Amino acid sequence: MSSDSSKLTYFGPYEVTSQVFYNTPFSYCLVNIKPLLPGHVLVISNRIVPRLTDLTTNEVTDLFMTVQKVQRMLAKVYFKPEAEVGRVGTPEDGAFNVAMQDGISAGQTVPHVHVHIIPRPRDSPQGDEIYDRIESEEGNVGGALWDRSRPIPGGKFAKPEESDRKNRTETEMVKEANFFREQMELVD
Amino acid sequence: MSSDSSKLTYFGPYEVTSQVFYNTPFSYCLVNIKPLLPGHVLVISNRIVPRLTDLTTNEVTDLFMTVQKVQRMLAKVYFKPEAEVGRVGTPEDGAFNVAMQDGISAGQTVPHVHVHIIPRPRDSPQGDEIYDRIESEEGNVGGALWDRSRPIPGGKFAKPEESDRKNRTETEMVKEANFFREQMELVD
Repeated sequence: MSSDSSKLTYFGPYEVTSQVFYNTPFSYCLVNIKPLLPGHVLVISNRIVPRLTDLTTNEVTDLFMTVQKVQRMLAKVYFKPEAEVGRVGTPEDGAFNVAMQDGISAGQTVPHVHVHIIPRPRDSPQGDEIYDRIESEEGNVGGALWDRSRPIPGGKFAKPEESDRKNRTETEMVKEANFFREQMELVD
Repeated sequence: MSSDSSKLTYFGPYEVTSQVFYNTPFSYCLVNIKPLLPGHVLVISNRIVPRLTDLTTNEVTDLFMTVQKVQRMLAKVYFKPEAEVGRVGTPEDGAFNVAMQDGISAGQTVPHVHVHIIPRPRDSPQGDEIYDRIESEEGNVGGALWDRSRPIPGGKFAKPEESDRKNRTETEMVKEANFFREQMELVD
């Protein structure tokens, strides 16, 4: 967001500064270049280490408290209007897949701890197409989602459907990041 | 573990006392009745609430520090002998899928916060069969794994392959729980 290059944010080899929508003392949050479903975002440790077991207690706490806060924000944006803060646990609200690919053979493609959050609104279309798209990501909703130059872990994961998931433009991502940044101020 | 009925542990409607292999102040760990892959276990909040956002800071911290500790134990059991404590982040080691189905429309079938941990040894067979099995779980490695009487979220998830994943016997589960309980004492 700043022209000060010392403030640029990287995720793997990618400069993602304008896609960041939230920062905490130990974590940051990014919109995704190829969201599996609308609102699919990443919560990432500031410290560049590959594995969950590399994080300190403070980092783990911050990472998942941030996941909670992002869930509250996404619930307001994507779920029914009555799904207010603090009510995301009720059955009539939507849900989330929360997933980590913790290491290469679990599909991790950027060796930097990150948590996928994927909103699953209850009344969203749930046809086979959506499931097929999810399944195309190596049978893991976490998927290897940051794939501008994606390796294929284990040599078996990529499927033809993969190519249907188009990269978003920088403009689209910045617009979403700006919107989510505003929304984060509206939740506890 | 005890004949004192006040110490019985339940997960949803299921009495799982003998499948528990680790307890913390806020969490407990269970072996699975239908592991997707060997070593697939669950880390569960003691407090019976459905959603990640229902947990307090202390509960979240404990839950994921427990996930870390269980990963260290599973790394010793399932990965190469050189994958010692503290080395699970190196590429030659295995990996883990860590997944939560946080709400009904994300596939959650027991409304009680739980984290799936699935070891992915690097040199395990990685044929299509394994991916098909993972994909048969609603395209989510988290899967709806505790399915002695499983609902089908969204009405679209179950697939024929599902029936190939057999329930384990009580004896098998108790044996594994006992083994993991011992192993937990050997990690930090």
